[in-house]
Amino acid sequence: MDLDKYFVKSELIPAIIQDVKTNQVLMLAYMNRESLKKTLETGQTWFWSRSRGELWNKGATSGHIQRVVEIYSDCDDDTLLITVEQVGNACHTGEYSCFFNKVKFE
Amino acid sequence: MDLDKYFVKSELIPAIIQDVKTNQVLMLAYMNRESLKKTLETGQTWFWSRSRGELWNKGATSGHIQRVVEIYSDCDDDTLLITVEQVGNACHTGEYSCFFNKVKFE
Repeated sequence: MDLDKYFVKSELIPAIIQDVKTNQVLMLAYMNRESLKKTLETGQTWFWSRSRGELWNKGATSGHIQRVVEIYSDCDDDTLLITVEQVGNACHTGEYSCFFNKVKFE
Repeated sequence: MDLDKYFVKSELIPAIIQDVKTNQVLMLAYMNRESLKKTLETGQTWFWSRSRGELWNKGATSGHIQRVVEIYSDCDDDTLLITVEQVGNACHTGEYSCFFNKVKFE
């Protein structure tokens, strides 16, 4: 499978992770070619950690893995949307989704 | 309002745009400090176009604006999730969401 088109603009592509049951957005993380390849091969999410500079299999330590249901790319192939079955919580803080901080405005 | 914390890692923060009614993910685009400020002030989405190198008010040309309902930041303040009321289609291709390409796997 040709993954080149996802890495034209950058070596990392942002992947939005969405709960397939509720459509809740759980997190965003980055994939390099190898992590996308491993995600496709294993059916679980793999990312590239920018802070640690290493590949990580989400949930490998915590058990909170994400089983991939569908993968979509956007109209210009520079973002992925991945629907998953989330085991446990997506966020390392213990929250189900990473997006629990509401920004006040207007 | 202190926006500095959203721009520690990068001058651009990715913003996931989600339909508030259906929870469908519509698009991902990038905000710099000025576009986030304008989004907060106007209640419509403003982004930074990396390809054109300019600020854009989503829908200013097409009429397909996005009215901001809620804004969330993630656990480490490097991604935004914005729920919107979408007028017309989110994608410039005429699709409602930019994520219409299904990636085949396994």
